[in-house]
Amino acid sequence: MLFHVTMDVDLPPDLDPATKAETLSREKAYCQRLQDQGKWVHIWRVVGQYANVSIFDVDSPGELHEILWNLPLFPFMTVTVTPLCRHPSAL
Amino acid sequence: MLFHVTMDVDLPPDLDPATKAETLSREKAYCQRLQDQGKWVHIWRVVGQYANVSIFDVDSPGELHEILWNLPLFPFMTVTVTPLCRHPSAL
Amino acid sequence: MLFHVTMDVDLPPDLDPATKAETLSREKAYCQRLQDQGKWVHIWRVVGQYANVSIFDVDSPGELHEILWNLPLFPFMTVTVTPLCRHPSAL
Amino acid sequence: MLFHVTMDVDLPPDLDPATKAETLSREKAYCQRLQDQGKWVHIWRVVGQYANVSIFDVDSPGELHEILWNLPLFPFMTVTVTPLCRHPSAL
Amino acid sequence: MLFHVTMDVDLPPDLDPATKAETLSREKAYCQRLQDQGKWVHIWRVVGQYANVSIFDVDSPGELHEILWNLPLFPFMTVTVTPLCRHPSAL
Amino acid sequence: MLFHVTMDVDLPPDLDPATKAETLSREKAYCQRLQDQGKWVHIWRVVGQYANVSIFDVDSPGELHEILWNLPLFPFMTVTVTPLCRHPSAL
Amino acid sequence: MLFHVTMDVDLPPDLDPATKAETLSREKAYCQRLQDQGKWVHIWRVVGQYANVSIFDVDSPGELHEILWNLPLFPFMTVTVTPLCRHPSAL
Amino acid sequence: MLFHVTMDVDLPPDLDPATKAETLSREKAYCQRLQDQGKWVHIWRVVGQYANVSIFDVDSPGELHEILWNLPLFPFMTVTVTPLCRHPSAL
Amino acid sequence: MLFHVTMDVDLPPDLDPATKAETLSREKAYCQRLQDQGKWVHIWRVVGQYANVSIFDVDSPGELHEILWNLPLFPFMTVTVTPLCRHPSAL
Amino acid sequence: MLFHVTMDVDLPPDLDPATKAETLSREKAYCQRLQDQGKWVHIWRVVGQYANVSIFDVDSPGELHEILWNLPLFPFMTVTVTPLCRHPSAL
Repeated sequence: MLFHVTMDVDLPPDLDPATKAETLSREKAYCQRLQDQGKWVHIWRVVGQYANVSIFDVDSPGELHEILWNLPLFPFMTVTVTPLCRHPSAL
Repeated sequence: MLFHVTMDVDLPPDLDPATKAETLSREKAYCQRLQDQGKWVHIWRVVGQYANVSIFDVDSPGELHEILWNLPLFPFMTVTVTPLCRHPSAL
Repeated sequence: MLFHVTMDVDLPPDLDPATKAETLSREKAYCQRLQDQGKWVHIWRVVGQYANVSIFDVDSPGELHEILWNLPLFPFMTVTVTPLCRHPSAL
Repeated sequence: MLFHVTMDVDLPPDLDPATKAETLSREKAYCQRLQDQGKWVHIWRVVGQYANVSIFDVDSPGELHEILWNLPLFPFMTVTVTPLCRHPSAL
Repeated sequence: MLFHVTMDVDLPPDLDPATKAETLSREKAYCQRLQDQGKWVHIWRVVGQYANVSIFDVDSPGELHEILWNLPLFPFMTVTVTPLCRHPSAL
Repeated sequence: MLFHVTMDVDLPPDLDPATKAETLSREKAYCQRLQDQGKWVHIWRVVGQYANVSIFDVDSPGELHEILWNLPLFPFMTVTVTPLCRHPSAL
Repeated sequence: MLFHVTMDVDLPPDLDPATKAETLSREKAYCQRLQDQGKWVHIWRVVGQYANVSIFDVDSPGELHEILWNLPLFPFMTVTVTPLCRHPSAL
Repeated sequence: MLFHVTMDVDLPPDLDPATKAETLSREKAYCQRLQDQGKWVHIWRVVGQYANVSIFDVDSPGELHEILWNLPLFPFMTVTVTPLCRHPSAL
Repeated sequence: MLFHVTMDVDLPPDLDPATKAETLSREKAYCQRLQDQGKWVHIWRVVGQYANVSIFDVDSPGELHEILWNLPLFPFMTVTVTPLCRHPSAL
Repeated sequence: MLFHVTMDVDLPPDLDPATKAETLSREKAYCQRLQDQGKWVHIWRVVGQYANVSIFDVDSPGELHEILWNLPLFPFMTVTVTPLCRHPSAL
């Protein structure tokens, strides 16, 4: 099932640079592993924002929560989740 | 170039049924023609809403405006447009 | 899977009384049939509002959309949908 | 009497890990004791959020306030309270 | 138990004058009967608004809902309900 | 003249405990002195919030400002002030 | 005592032209009479809006309510009222 | 002096087609005359909206108000006005 | 030309007391000098708020920006600016 | 293609003065280089705000994102991006 998710990142300006670099590196690996698994089917950067729009394809709302909760950047994110379904005009 | 578009539809309750049916039929044909042309690359229904989330791939902002402005349901829609670009973590 | 749904009803003041009575009667029957089926697991009135808070237990987001879209009062409702999952402190 | 309560948690990023662990442990025990007593009748996690939706069944608004005020995480929460009553369509 | 209630009135400009006068008269009588019964303990006009702030003292949230739902002006009102309890500094 | 005032308190989590205790003690004494004087005619706790709803009866807007400005918790409060007058339905 | 008042006017597009002209004429006379009396001490047009910002000097909140409630355009206005007092830096 | 102005147009769906066409034609002529005079220095369409973003260069706020107030579409517009000045980094 | 300006002050609670006292003293002198010059024509305290409503009479938007930008408290203020003009009903 | 961009700056009050001066100097040089290149076609100061309104003319949304993301003040900015196109009334 599909969910539309937005993630806005707000890193504290005084975050230790090494912690920041390590967190961003883990975030990228985590994101790409989920893309490889076909769970995180789209991720786009929002122009001019430290934010993304994503589409997830998961087996349950609970699986989506586990994925989002464990994002390395989760403590610094504002997240919205919108359930989607097939549009009658979609080919 | 990619744009994230949301469309919320609010049809007046006293809309003539024949006009409504004809407008919805033209909207569906218009939407599917743009999907065929590869311009309207995704359309999803938002669960519980008379609304969709869409992704457009167009040659210019002006082309996107022409497409949206000519939607048969445009006079009854609230539309948001968000420009997207490649996310550094996208595979 | 569980979804939290709020429904705010706004009936036009000039709605024909017979249409109104018939619609409300169909709404009640529809709601109670879904409660019987175990799909609409809770419905509470919000004090002082023409609104309810509900919990649905459905097989998919698409099934929830079909249920909500076919509510007799849907054209007069503002609906919000929030996906839920198990809380780690729940017994 | 029933109340719908939402709780959004926002822990400061620099919270001492031991304090955090101890507070979360007390919060869980406190929550489960109230579930055992039949006061906190439902708690669900909101997908993708450090938040819950809950239903309380208490003897008075004052009792609900005492319960919420003494939540170990209360200083870090944004709380909303909505009084509920029986819906005429509820079975 | 005490509830803080706000009521904002928005009468349609084309309301029939006789209907309007009759509704306002019933509203006033209804309001004063509840004051006599000690249910509607305070009602103040908000300066510059067609609105009031009120305090109700009722036996249950359900009783409050019945009172508000049956206000002759209820279809034209936006209502908010806030549960109150004793303040520790109150004498 | 009557004013409806709401006060939302947001104490910084790292406030020194002795400072906090002393400030709260002064706040309570200040509040009760004004109740004794008949200036602060009602104070109710909002259920589930570190907030109150109050009614003041003062001689002028300027007197109300002096009272609020000198609240020991004023620097930590978000305050709203709404002027009230007699409602035509009030007994 | 001084109050800051904003008035936003929203006339229905189908208002009868004679009714509109007569209402605007009464509004202007009403406004100027109150200026003459020293009650309506300032009125400014907000640039680009059918709106004004005004300062009233009245004897009580109740008097201000009477003045605003009887504005010929009151049924078409959104009004905000803010009590003012002397600023310590004012000369 | 420069002002940033946004105009959102909301035409009633039941507007008489001849009135609509005539109003739009007058709006266009009015807009182009002001461009010719160097008063309306920029006008851009907002993609996906019946709205524009404009820059005006006028002699006074009062002149800007006269221009906006007399727009043929003014009764159907939501307008915002923001005063601008030279940016220290502008070349 | 006239501008309506609101200023909300939010001083950090840990501001050094000497810095605070010196800044407030400079703010007051700056404000009164501009009143003497006829630039800052009105300043009122908003009751119950660390805020003011002001009217400025300046030669240009740029002059107003210079005045506001150089307020000693500017870094701690939220400011709104609304251009005004003559109201047709003003005497 | 054209984009309307707003930038609101919020510098932390405890920013090191040397860091601040160096960042502002880099920001100005960066901004002026993009003006020289014809990418940043307009920048105006919003009166009374630490904010600007800008117009960019870029080859793609991705190019705009690179420009904004690399602004020296980007970590301290709230940015909005609105795609524009030709208005049918523009000369």
